[in-house]
Amino acid sequence: MTVPARDSVPADALLTDLYQLSMMQAYWEHGLTETATFDLICRRLPPHRNLLIACGLEAALEYLEGVAVTAADLEYLASLNRFSMDFLNRLERLRFHGEVRAVPEGTPVFGNEPILEVTASLPEAQIVETYLLSAIHHQTMAASAAYRLAAAAKGTPVVDFGTRHTQGAAAGVDTARAAYIAGLAGTSNVAAGRRFGVPISGTMAHSYIQAHERESDALASFAATHHGTTLLVDTYDIRRGVGLVIDLAERQGNDFDVAAIRIDSGDLAGNARLAREMLDGTGLASVRIIVSGDLDAERIAELVDHGAPIDGYGVGTALAVSTDAPYLDTAYKLAEYAGQGRMKLAASKRTWPGRKQVFRQTSNGMAVRDVLGTANEALDGRPLLETVMLDGQRIDPSVRSLDAIRRHAADSLAELPQFVRGLDLAEPPYPVVISDRLDNAARQLASHLRAEA
Amino acid sequence: MTVPARDSVPADALLTDLYQLSMMQAYWEHGLTETATFDLICRRLPPHRNLLIACGLEAALEYLEGVAVTAADLEYLASLNRFSMDFLNRLERLRFHGEVRAVPEGTPVFGNEPILEVTASLPEAQIVETYLLSAIHHQTMAASAAYRLAAAAKGTPVVDFGTRHTQGAAAGVDTARAAYIAGLAGTSNVAAGRRFGVPISGTMAHSYIQAHERESDALASFAATHHGTTLLVDTYDIRRGVGLVIDLAERQGNDFDVAAIRIDSGDLAGNARLAREMLDGTGLASVRIIVSGDLDAERIAELVDHGAPIDGYGVGTALAVSTDAPYLDTAYKLAEYAGQGRMKLAASKRTWPGRKQVFRQTSNGMAVRDVLGTANEALDGRPLLETVMLDGQRIDPSVRSLDAIRRHAADSLAELPQFVRGLDLAEPPYPVVISDRLDNAARQLASHLRAEA
Repeated sequence: MTVPARDSVPADALLTDLYQLSMMQAYWEHGLTETATFDLICRRLPPHRNLLIACGLEAALEYLEGVAVTAADLEYLASLNRFSMDFLNRLERLRFHGEVRAVPEGTPVFGNEPILEVTASLPEAQIVETYLLSAIHHQTMAASAAYRLAAAAKGTPVVDFGTRHTQGAAAGVDTARAAYIAGLAGTSNVAAGRRFGVPISGTMAHSYIQAHERESDALASFAATHHGTTLLVDTYDIRRGVGLVIDLAERQGNDFDVAAIRIDSGDLAGNARLAREMLDGTGLASVRIIVSGDLDAERIAELVDHGAPIDGYGVGTALAVSTDAPYLDTAYKLAEYAGQGRMKLAASKRTWPGRKQVFRQTSNGMAVRDVLGTANEALDGRPLLETVMLDGQRIDPSVRSLDAIRRHAADSLAELPQFVRGLDLAEPPYPVVISDRLDNAARQLASHLRAEA
Repeated sequence: MTVPARDSVPADALLTDLYQLSMMQAYWEHGLTETATFDLICRRLPPHRNLLIACGLEAALEYLEGVAVTAADLEYLASLNRFSMDFLNRLERLRFHGEVRAVPEGTPVFGNEPILEVTASLPEAQIVETYLLSAIHHQTMAASAAYRLAAAAKGTPVVDFGTRHTQGAAAGVDTARAAYIAGLAGTSNVAAGRRFGVPISGTMAHSYIQAHERESDALASFAATHHGTTLLVDTYDIRRGVGLVIDLAERQGNDFDVAAIRIDSGDLAGNARLAREMLDGTGLASVRIIVSGDLDAERIAELVDHGAPIDGYGVGTALAVSTDAPYLDTAYKLAEYAGQGRMKLAASKRTWPGRKQVFRQTSNGMAVRDVLGTANEALDGRPLLETVMLDGQRIDPSVRSLDAIRRHAADSLAELPQFVRGLDLAEPPYPVVISDRLDNAARQLASHLRAEA
């Protein structure tokens, strides 16, 4: 039911930076139309992070399959008096015909490892940069934040309540999908359920309580409409709110059908303990306790460590904007043109030339290190980059199920050593080494470039 | 050409949190369909911020005019086995018929001041919460970050290069619009130019240089294609890059038509000085210097303070994710239901009941304080909240021009005292006081609510 439709929506080619178009025109004018390879990487992990969860490939491929300009786009571009008619005529026929290699969504990745690699004629590979960076950056950031939330909760479900703090509610749909892949239990975003089949969940807001003259009426009416629901108990006072739920249970007897209460403020551990005692003391041990309110991975870990009787977490802002790492150091770097490796020399922005492969090496079923090598060498370990698109068409036309992607994420995480999977910074970090062949290629290219200079 | 089309796209009603739908069903079942007023506020300003620039109203109104569910939406909702047929039948006819009051986009606002106020039947006012919060939060955050960048640059143009770090490239379109309103000179996002008429600009990327065997060929070919363009000079070495531009000028003589160079790495002040000296020393004083690379308001202020010879700034991440304040404490709070004020009692989440007005009081043309009062009192000062929508339709059907909104932002900022407009934290902050009438209403309501408890 929720399998996304393919090829239904043309992707907007003007969702790009102006300089991509300026460069395209120059490439075409001067015959720079040989094959180029670009790597989409995160150069360095954010401070305090041990890994990222690659995400956004589905959006990237959907875009690459559909990218095109419309007549209205051409009219707009012509109005700018920046571009030649030749260029606009050529742009009108734009389609992406390239090849894409990528790590599967949900795969843990480290600094400098290509998440996605585009090989296409230089102008085609250039115009798609902005959209690809934006999609992969956003979704990898969200998945990586979600992974930490799930890791902190140690098996207790965590749900995404963050759409009100994403960059528009539509961005929240992608955040919800990424978060589910990385281990959250679901989302409050209904469109994410419809579009991607992410499990949706939700409770009630303070406004529902406040709209009633009496809190007790509010709780009773909501429970009457929604069986097995969650009631919010701290709009005015937590002790009073839990007491009203207990009163409701006593009035309703066997008809009482409330699955959980939600606590949204104050000392969450203390409030959860108070609520648990009150509920347990009146035979309501089966009523679960959900908490929310300014939660992040560190606060969840604290609550878990203190043994607070909490059965579910709702997280908003910490996921929506990835508060502890609100951006990643992502880049889309030219690695090869016309069969020759390319790289920047600047030390702080060092990249690796040519088409590459990442080999995840294991020992007794546990990953021990990654080797970043050239695409054509055969090293020990599982190669992470897979060819997913040829000539602008996906190799596998079926949509990978969201749950399969989520399982892949869980399995790939389980393969990593515990010190990498935890919330604390791993010192030393998980090792990523450069293969001899790649290192030699980089050295040769660097001395060639310096000689040119 | 770039005036947005109205009413053309139905807005997606499922871009909402599940609990909004759950509450709607309960409201309808239990007859809670009286008129409700919700305030969309930022409770507290982010640390180190003196003000916010309200933005996102256009997107909010467009959504409210179009919000509707489709047959496919209803099918999806029915498949969840959560909702009654009665509810789904009623939802099918959903339209927003409410009233909206709002501060005009571009207006500086402070903590607890309503940015937007929705008055509608309770279920209608509830379902729109998520989308409105998400749009206003995102765009107000972006405009507020942009304002600081522009303030730091003290008149030197700052351009948005941030789309690769927004939550998808479509979110970057809204970021670009918000940033332009708040004082940036333009954006690299082409779709933002087409959709909203934001001035677009751009230069060239390192990949263009790297695709060529020789840097000198790259610079010459780009300049041949694009007259009055900007050349990137630090792909390999800044001194060499500027030297190549000078060589090009010497070769081309009167045909030389390069407007600017861009420096993207290293010590920007030092590199700009070096480039300025080299250019000036060879008669190229008219070639401007644009810098980019990890810039934020503080770094721009430093460069300005040190008198670095810089003619333009390109900013990415600091705008795209508002690095110094990556989220705002926004909320959508029930203020009135069925003619009676509503509020939460929790001290940390204190809100003010009833329909309100913000009065900006001036002395000698300068704003001296804001008074948050009730909607029906007449206090000194300019009322900031205007009625913009009645019965679900905009009062003014014409789209306000982006440049008019931008001028309003500049004028409203100029009205504030310098200590509030600057980058440093204003201590004490700009005063926002509560009117006696509003304070009395809040006290009475609080004691009523405590008596109920």
